Amino acid sequence: MDSSNIPPTTRLTDAERVDRLRLIRSDNVGPRTFRSLVHHFGSAKAALARLPELARRGGAARAGRILSEDDARGELAASQRMGVSLVTPDEAGYPPRLATLDDAPPLLGIRGATEALMRPMIAIVGSRNASGAGLKFAGRLAHDLSDAGFVITSGLARGIDQAAHRTSIDGGTVAVLAGGHDKIYPPEHEDLLAQILVSGAAISEMPLGHAPRARDFPRRNRLISGAALGVVVVEAAHRSGSLITARIANEQGREVFAVPGSPLDPRAAGTNDLIKQGATLITEAADVINAVAPIMERPIELREPDNAEPFQDSCDFDPGAGDRARIVGLLGPAPLSLDDLVRMAAASPATVRVVLLELELAGRLERHGGGMVSLI
Amino acid sequence: MDSSNIPPTTRLTDAERVDRLRLIRSDNVGPRTFRSLVHHFGSAKAALARLPELARRGGAARAGRILSEDDARGELAASQRMGVSLVTPDEAGYPPRLATLDDAPPLLGIRGATEALMRPMIAIVGSRNASGAGLKFAGRLAHDLSDAGFVITSGLARGIDQAAHRTSIDGGTVAVLAGGHDKIYPPEHEDLLAQILVSGAAISEMPLGHAPRARDFPRRNRLISGAALGVVVVEAAHRSGSLITARIANEQGREVFAVPGSPLDPRAAGTNDLIKQGATLITEAADVINAVAPIMERPIELREPDNAEPFQDSCDFDPGAGDRARIVGLLGPAPLSLDDLVRMAAASPATVRVVLLELELAGRLERHGGGMVSLI
Repeated sequence: MDSSNIPPTTRLTDAERVDRLRLIRSDNVGPRTFRSLVHHFGSAKAALARLPELARRGGAARAGRILSEDDARGELAASQRMGVSLVTPDEAGYPPRLATLDDAPPLLGIRGATEALMRPMIAIVGSRNASGAGLKFAGRLAHDLSDAGFVITSGLARGIDQAAHRTSIDGGTVAVLAGGHDKIYPPEHEDLLAQILVSGAAISEMPLGHAPRARDFPRRNRLISGAALGVVVVEAAHRSGSLITARIANEQGREVFAVPGSPLDPRAAGTNDLIKQGATLITEAADVINAVAPIMERPIELREPDNAEPFQDSCDFDPGAGDRARIVGLLGPAPLSLDDLVRMAAASPATVRVVLLELELAGRLERHGGGMVSLI
Repeated sequence: MDSSNIPPTTRLTDAERVDRLRLIRSDNVGPRTFRSLVHHFGSAKAALARLPELARRGGAARAGRILSEDDARGELAASQRMGVSLVTPDEAGYPPRLATLDDAPPLLGIRGATEALMRPMIAIVGSRNASGAGLKFAGRLAHDLSDAGFVITSGLARGIDQAAHRTSIDGGTVAVLAGGHDKIYPPEHEDLLAQILVSGAAISEMPLGHAPRARDFPRRNRLISGAALGVVVVEAAHRSGSLITARIANEQGREVFAVPGSPLDPRAAGTNDLIKQGATLITEAADVINAVAPIMERPIELREPDNAEPFQDSCDFDPGAGDRARIVGLLGPAPLSLDDLVRMAAASPATVRVVLLELELAGRLERHGGGMVSLI
């Protein structure tokens, strides 16, 4: 089982947890920026002190919001009251495979029987408006995988998600939320969630009180696949959200499984396409189990360490107006790699990195897969 | 189109055609034995003269039947009366890809608009008791492939075969028969066949008057796939005959395509399994066309010439009782290769080959794929 592979874990001090929570809850700080900032400045506390200046240098029109220490302590206390732990990727309790992602949430809100998060997981996703056959199959597959010792991750949505959670409740299933733990969507699944939490868990990277918006769902989907060995897409029409999950899973190096259907059934168009593109066709739990067995035997590959040099003098490192203007001038809406920028700007990697960080904190930079960046 | 690849063709004399017909219609002479005999003895006429002696040496309990010259002339005349030509693989009119098979029929009965046999073909097969969706899909696929210039080959059976023939009648479709041209099965498809013959054709390796038996259908199936670039299996349960066609197609080096279906639909179990085993999932004609396009650009690979030496002195070549006994002693119900036999018997390849031929003509040898043989 995965638990044998868990790396040694640390335990944060309360003050460190408050600092990290403040940093990840600040404007324009996503998981990747969080990682860069902590790496370059040595700690969340040091990074917080630099945020306003960096954002200003990046051209921010106005100062971004930084979560206050009081608000951070308030969120931690409120989380604790509803049984939510906020854990970091290097702490015990964080789902081990999720911790390997480049954009793993720096603080993950975990609630329920959290030991379920230590077991090997399979994600099951699919249409909200699934067919009767699709729902029946999702339920059967989740049940059989659960019987075989796997924990099912899904998104608590109507349709396939619901069917998958329901039949794997006894063995432990994990609901990955797009909003905060107190903003369950859809609201009618609060009862289902309560049942899930007995043997399973719910996880979210969002703050309490955050009601999920449309754009939060694709972002959340990376956690459904990222925590798992692989993702099974049960039913999906063309351009279904589940296909985005499959694409992300592929980028994450997770196995992608798809359930076939008749070419005359539009709800199978997406899954049939996935198989054409290389996903593994599955018709029963054994197909999934056989495919992930060799992966489970390998140790979990840790995230590549950030091997960029920390800023030499982190308090004063400023690229200077000339370098900054040249780098910004090279950027545009088309994604470029860091290496390209270093070469084209004839600047040091450290200089390019700090300019990108400034732009990001100013809300002017978008990060893509494969280390590519573009201006917003 | 395939027709540009057709090798130069010969035209037999009547006497040669009569001899070849007599040889292939003789007891225990299949296409592979026919080929060995003609190669080793130089002509069908010479082989016919040696048959009784070879069968006796192989241990035949009684002399096998050899078609008389009168009966052969009678079959040719009767075939001609109903518009059936009996052509050999090196003559014009023989389907070019079929001619490349090791076990291509030495004389193929061809009827209808035979120019259809010169065009690129796709086989479509599937269940006799297909679902409405399966029939609809087969019809649509055959129609679209026909529109794109392909000729559809199938087996004239109820279900998928019928649906595939029916929608490709105008563009030309080929019915591959398991019995003689005058013994159509199922009988209620005689009208369908009449329509097929206007722009398409029917082919059979069986003599007139031969009513198809159960074992003739798998044998026939190799012609459905062998004449085509690839075979599409539309609907097939576990252990369906269409899966045998798919296996043979694979051995023949033909593309195997399968139409997916719900895991809850038993009629899709066979096609889903084929995809798991490596068949190409298809949901529309374009998938097939894209896959066969590169194959169509290559010249058709001719059969490997039989590079074994003809018997040195074909009239008198007799392995001798010692060699024969040793070779027969090595054989059993488990298939062995010719190479293994040569090595284990410490005999010459020519000696082993002639003993195998004797055993075959005595009805004591079974030939398997890959040149393996076993005793019956």
